[in-house]
Amino acid sequence: VVYGADLVILAGPVKVIAEQLKEVGGYLRRGTIVTDVGSTKGAIVEAAQKFLPAHILFVGSHPMAGSEKSGVAHAQADLLKGAACIMTPNDKTNRLAKEKVKHLWESLGMTVRMMDPVQHDEILAYVSHLPHITAFSLIRSIPDDFLQHASTGLRDSTRLAGASAKMWSDISTSNSRNLLRGIDEMVGHLSELRKAIIDKDEAALATYFNQAKAKREILDGKAHG
Amino acid sequence: VVYGADLVILAGPVKVIAEQLKEVGGYLRRGTIVTDVGSTKGAIVEAAQKFLPAHILFVGSHPMAGSEKSGVAHAQADLLKGAACIMTPNDKTNRLAKEKVKHLWESLGMTVRMMDPVQHDEILAYVSHLPHITAFSLIRSIPDDFLQHASTGLRDSTRLAGASAKMWSDISTSNSRNLLRGIDEMVGHLSELRKAIIDKDEAALATYFNQAKAKREILDGKAHG
Repeated sequence: VVYGADLVILAGPVKVIAEQLKEVGGYLRRGTIVTDVGSTKGAIVEAAQKFLPAHILFVGSHPMAGSEKSGVAHAQADLLKGAACIMTPNDKTNRLAKEKVKHLWESLGMTVRMMDPVQHDEILAYVSHLPHITAFSLIRSIPDDFLQHASTGLRDSTRLAGASAKMWSDISTSNSRNLLRGIDEMVGHLSELRKAIIDKDEAALATYFNQAKAKREILDGKAHG
Repeated sequence: VVYGADLVILAGPVKVIAEQLKEVGGYLRRGTIVTDVGSTKGAIVEAAQKFLPAHILFVGSHPMAGSEKSGVAHAQADLLKGAACIMTPNDKTNRLAKEKVKHLWESLGMTVRMMDPVQHDEILAYVSHLPHITAFSLIRSIPDDFLQHASTGLRDSTRLAGASAKMWSDISTSNSRNLLRGIDEMVGHLSELRKAIIDKDEAALATYFNQAKAKREILDGKAHG
């Protein structure tokens, strides 16, 4: 399929993209630009450097659009418009490839930011992967027969739990080290709160909640699509 | 203020309402109906039975409307319309008081459900209090300098963390036993996931996420305002 292409965009689970990078090199002509849309970037950028011949120009992309819905039925023509795309060039990235791929995403209406692939995975573990993991765990913690009493609060808090199990299984294992650190952080914060509740320490609780509220307010009007 | 009233609605933090119940009894005439809008009901119903004279007719209410915003600036004339209200009569509740208070909430556009006060606190611990606690803990887990990269996912997941610290400090301690059970459940589910990630057990991860997704789908189109 990729034979003779000028630009190849690999899309799929992170592990599949890493496999594809092993295979496509032999079918591509000199100067072909390759990018991808994988949700984690460390393993993919590493595979590209390891498996693609030097005359193939790779740069990683992570267009951050989509919802918890999957499948063709949920396709949206303007999905990328106004959304953010992180590109992950490093010191080995060809400058022309970087500019061309950046132009591609921008022409589709995206705002492009550049980030180191390792830093990308660390940041995404917190701002995207941990909220998903939390949503999956939260909805599992609610007894079935209580769900009928749910309010919009629970519904919003667990929206991300509607995401594709296959995709999240892939992301969890491909960014495991960062994500485990995030989970430990989360459990630590829950334990701190648990202790304050047991101690009926209203001052500690108020401080905890106020700090959370102040941090949450930073997000308002700042979050990307 | 309450002297001579036909109906008294106590509003405030749960602990304040419990205090008010100790004081108002002496100022109310025979047959006065008293209700409240507290977020937990066990302690309030208990205080009403203990402190109000027998000729004062109490029934607990929990109108479940409002948002994470507080203060007069966020007042909404149609706040209660279409929202759910749980009333918590028990075998000592006067039938007329129950009907009159039910009519009051319904005439304001609310859908009223009856529930035992103990059961109310158990259910609310899971469908409302745990999601709040989770939102507070989740936003605290995100490093400050990563917040600028947040997407709508993190924003929705942590919306509840914008709620009043004073109110949630009150709710956490007044429903502590149920809430602690919920937190333990949540930490248990996070730990299960943590283990599956460490083991790179993709089958366990897929099962976990699929079960969460199926449970989340029950909420769609079912959650109350």
